[in-house]
Amino acid sequence: MPIPELRLIERIAHASESAQPAPRRASLGRVLQSIGDDCAILSTLPGTETLVTTDFSLEGVHFRREWHPADSVGHRCLTRGLSDIAAMGGTPFAAFLSLALPAELPQRWADQFFDGLLTTAKKAGVTLAGGDLAQSLSGVQADITVIGTVPAGKAIRRSGAQPGDRIFVSGELGAPYALLEQMYAAPERRFRASSYPAHFYPQAQLALARFLGDKQLPSSMIDISDGLSLDLTRLCKASKVGALLQENAIPIASLNRHEVELRHALHGGDEYQLLFTVPPGRRLPAEYQEIPLSLIGYITEGDEISIEHENGYITEFEPQGWQHFTPDATRATKRPKRKP
Amino acid sequence: MPIPELRLIERIAHASESAQPAPRRASLGRVLQSIGDDCAILSTLPGTETLVTTDFSLEGVHFRREWHPADSVGHRCLTRGLSDIAAMGGTPFAAFLSLALPAELPQRWADQFFDGLLTTAKKAGVTLAGGDLAQSLSGVQADITVIGTVPAGKAIRRSGAQPGDRIFVSGELGAPYALLEQMYAAPERRFRASSYPAHFYPQAQLALARFLGDKQLPSSMIDISDGLSLDLTRLCKASKVGALLQENAIPIASLNRHEVELRHALHGGDEYQLLFTVPPGRRLPAEYQEIPLSLIGYITEGDEISIEHENGYITEFEPQGWQHFTPDATRATKRPKRKP
Repeated sequence: MPIPELRLIERIAHASESAQPAPRRASLGRVLQSIGDDCAILSTLPGTETLVTTDFSLEGVHFRREWHPADSVGHRCLTRGLSDIAAMGGTPFAAFLSLALPAELPQRWADQFFDGLLTTAKKAGVTLAGGDLAQSLSGVQADITVIGTVPAGKAIRRSGAQPGDRIFVSGELGAPYALLEQMYAAPERRFRASSYPAHFYPQAQLALARFLGDKQLPSSMIDISDGLSLDLTRLCKASKVGALLQENAIPIASLNRHEVELRHALHGGDEYQLLFTVPPGRRLPAEYQEIPLSLIGYITEGDEISIEHENGYITEFEPQGWQHFTPDATRATKRPKRKP
Repeated sequence: MPIPELRLIERIAHASESAQPAPRRASLGRVLQSIGDDCAILSTLPGTETLVTTDFSLEGVHFRREWHPADSVGHRCLTRGLSDIAAMGGTPFAAFLSLALPAELPQRWADQFFDGLLTTAKKAGVTLAGGDLAQSLSGVQADITVIGTVPAGKAIRRSGAQPGDRIFVSGELGAPYALLEQMYAAPERRFRASSYPAHFYPQAQLALARFLGDKQLPSSMIDISDGLSLDLTRLCKASKVGALLQENAIPIASLNRHEVELRHALHGGDEYQLLFTVPPGRRLPAEYQEIPLSLIGYITEGDEISIEHENGYITEFEPQGWQHFTPDATRATKRPKRKP
């Protein structure tokens, strides 16, 4: 970085102020003191609770500088945190960025990273209210903390699913993982970011989360940033229930002239869609603001997670961990074991 | 790391629960949901504001694995955040740790890191309420977020100093920097951590901060984790004032059989003491709980920071940036320029 820390902080503070969002209708939290003191000072309305999440974005693990444009890295960095707030039915209002940059990084890269992050922050009604800057000895390393609010007692947890609840997922799945496989298959190829928004510019489902939270429809909710199979397993474990999925109900995305397969939709991460359960008798629209809401299965008693295939067979459904961009990530492309 | 992420999270959640602090007399914030959901859920009392700070602890930048025992790294990691909360006159109650570990790191190192961090958290009344875990491609990388509370409108900012205010600093300064110079001079030597607590186990001044905050004594306050000279400059800039320091009033520490010099006390970082200003007429004890509170100078009009030397000369006082443990850190050992 050609400019010393102090100047960079001033630049960010300025950019953050100019990107300060307009007051929102339903804002329950405010930033009273932003960058420029030992701490930020936040104020939340009485009758609310505060949500906090932190997420790394590490070069070589969560992104690659040769594959991902800087504004995509900044956007994705913040989106990881926004999606966690959405998954609790909350509204984000402040973010904190710890950012370590290599000494040789071009200033232009840092500028575009902040452009991506601050543009997304503004759209989400979030103020970049603080953070830390350091020199990195190896790669770009970011850690985002996002703070949100939720009416007291109304946070939607993972642990509320009951047998008989229906399982829904928002959006269409699999495109980010399908593109990732293509990237690994042709590491030298450069994919145009604007042609693959599901991978480069995924959207946290904040409006949907607020709609669901306001109506208190879900009995439990989680985002599927680590993939449907792993995050459904976490939800079932937290709720002490099982699940039966319908294979032919899984909404599979189409990717710019490429096929997306069922396994991409079931096991791919970086999706930022919401997986939630709804008790019997509660009605849900088929879509919300053009985002499809698909009924993909049912919560069952016990602890087994099964999937009913198109041929009518039911097999055990095994989660696969999502490895992002680690050197071992290609292992994630192996097909799930099936016991017919 | 020999154990996968999920198991490590369970271990931390368990350790965190068993280290859960007893309810505190003046606790204004509570953790309702800790590790185990998309976000933590926090609750703060009406009439309070929330303080947030984030700080990196990066191997090779903020510590060295060959010099610092793992429990010292964990302790220092959290202390950086606790000290920022103290500097606003606040009370910390929750922490979030993002931690990236190299695949080859011994389990024992991670265990001791958490021992150091959780022991310090318990003493400070802080719950480890969440975070993120990732594999690091290079070195141990930690980012701590600490959340605290302060009565509404009572946070002590950097910007409140007025001409005529007295400048105080807590504790005795210079030992961490003096030891750092010895480490650089003899990189192969291993200094026993327990013999150099000011460097390996510095204490955030939480009790002092609460005392000062309760009495609303300081007009402004900052911690000097980046060194007295740099942090005094920040305080003066934020308050739009100058300062006149008294060289012979600077409290210089003694280091286990080694000399600490004035320049160590003026320019060394990692101190975690508090620098604060008190309006004329407000009385302050000479020490608080055996921590000396030293009057080291006065706030002046204008924007110049000067220092009166023992010989009566007054010269301009130039800040020196604190570089932690970067490869260039030895640059920080150069003497300050003096204009007699």
